[in-house]
Amino acid sequence: MPSKVAEGAQRGWIVPIGGAEDKDNDKRVLRRFFELCGGAGADIAVIPTASRLNDTGDRYEQLFSEMGAGNVSVLDFDTRRDAHERNRVAAIEQASGIFITGGNQLRLSTMLGGTPIAQAIRARNAHGIPVGGTSAGAGILSEHMIAGGESDSATPHANSVRLAPGLGLTNRVVIDQHFRQRDRLGRLLAALAYNPFAIGLGVDEDTAALIGPDNVIQVEGSGAVTVVDADDLQFSSMAQVSGDAPVCMLGLQIHILTAGATYNLETRKASAGTLSPSKE
Amino acid sequence: MPSKVAEGAQRGWIVPIGGAEDKDNDKRVLRRFFELCGGAGADIAVIPTASRLNDTGDRYEQLFSEMGAGNVSVLDFDTRRDAHERNRVAAIEQASGIFITGGNQLRLSTMLGGTPIAQAIRARNAHGIPVGGTSAGAGILSEHMIAGGESDSATPHANSVRLAPGLGLTNRVVIDQHFRQRDRLGRLLAALAYNPFAIGLGVDEDTAALIGPDNVIQVEGSGAVTVVDADDLQFSSMAQVSGDAPVCMLGLQIHILTAGATYNLETRKASAGTLSPSKE
Repeated sequence: MPSKVAEGAQRGWIVPIGGAEDKDNDKRVLRRFFELCGGAGADIAVIPTASRLNDTGDRYEQLFSEMGAGNVSVLDFDTRRDAHERNRVAAIEQASGIFITGGNQLRLSTMLGGTPIAQAIRARNAHGIPVGGTSAGAGILSEHMIAGGESDSATPHANSVRLAPGLGLTNRVVIDQHFRQRDRLGRLLAALAYNPFAIGLGVDEDTAALIGPDNVIQVEGSGAVTVVDADDLQFSSMAQVSGDAPVCMLGLQIHILTAGATYNLETRKASAGTLSPSKE
Repeated sequence: MPSKVAEGAQRGWIVPIGGAEDKDNDKRVLRRFFELCGGAGADIAVIPTASRLNDTGDRYEQLFSEMGAGNVSVLDFDTRRDAHERNRVAAIEQASGIFITGGNQLRLSTMLGGTPIAQAIRARNAHGIPVGGTSAGAGILSEHMIAGGESDSATPHANSVRLAPGLGLTNRVVIDQHFRQRDRLGRLLAALAYNPFAIGLGVDEDTAALIGPDNVIQVEGSGAVTVVDADDLQFSSMAQVSGDAPVCMLGLQIHILTAGATYNLETRKASAGTLSPSKE
């Protein structure tokens, strides 16, 4: 279950990014996240734990500093014990934004799951602080995380996907990343075939799905966010198939959102937003 | 426009196959087509023109003969003039089923388009004779054919797809093949983004979408048929984007049909058919 939002408080933005966001040119995706964190003077905690590259944290520290951050804390975790350390928890608690880098989402979930750091991230988001993540850092944000599975398939199969618990900032969505680039519609559909209650978000590279406190999703970046709504699903054969057999799924609704379009997770309605001349 | 079906007559089955149908083991896709053509004693005309391999026609001749065909005519066309030749037109006119092999669909459309052979295929189908095709031979069957475009993308782009006129046995569907294997959802969506009136059929390899005379689609084979229904499309940004920019499309409905499930092109309703214990 997602963290309870205190009465009178508003949940913070949840910002899954599809990976490979631009870091050299317009940086529009990272800039948008930075603005949500307060812009100039922001205090950003960066968690590079998913990555096995040593300089991942430094790279984001530099990027956010150049944008005008007042402070950037890079918090790496090599053991679960690190995720109990008071100074690091304090850094999360004082941050005006929390950013989780890419890499392997299982490094994040095995290292942070159930620790005071995970609890602090949830609590801070429930109190209005934006939490963003790219690639693996995007997948971990929701309650049900895609832990692995097959790419390069538009058709769902029984074996397409493995799910695991994530950070649980929201349970309304299941997030997949590098969506277009790695052709992951099949595995996202398979995740929904198990239990259609959630809404699938397939986030392309250099693109963010910005989930607002009001549960309206905006899009930023050069790609698209594919929204898969299985609310009216008539039928799923997931219980009957196994192995590589394709899964029959009838009655899916899909929206391809580009920057400017929106999707409301409460009403399950898409809007062309600023893309539409008539502002429908 | 599709050929007019004479009063009292019933259109024949239209059978797009996604390519790479099994030819060595259960051959269930080809067998199903063969049964539609009348089974034992059937007279099948095979058009291998899309292929650049010399033995493609012979291969299907052998397969259908082994299944019990009374006659198999392999009709190759090297020039448009060949498609005016009386004996070949006669072979189409006496066949109880017409099969078009894979290869390059532009070889088919440039060689046969507007010729007496194309007219004969349309007329025969309008009078009840099944016409099937695999891969390129599947794409050519409909009025609007996907002539080319980019594979490996779930997100539609302005440049994703090139359309061309096909044989025109039906104008209700746009067909794509090798669907899952080459990740062609993006280009099928792009085809519908131009004009959402048609229904997209993405046919996996070793799988057939069997479009019945009643316009109910059945599925045969080991893969799936992805039905994309843009009837309720709220918005398409195709008119506003260019190049590699993603296309915003809101309100698509998608059904993944496996063998046993059906889709009615008239009512636009999917059914789990024999997959559902309750026969919903």
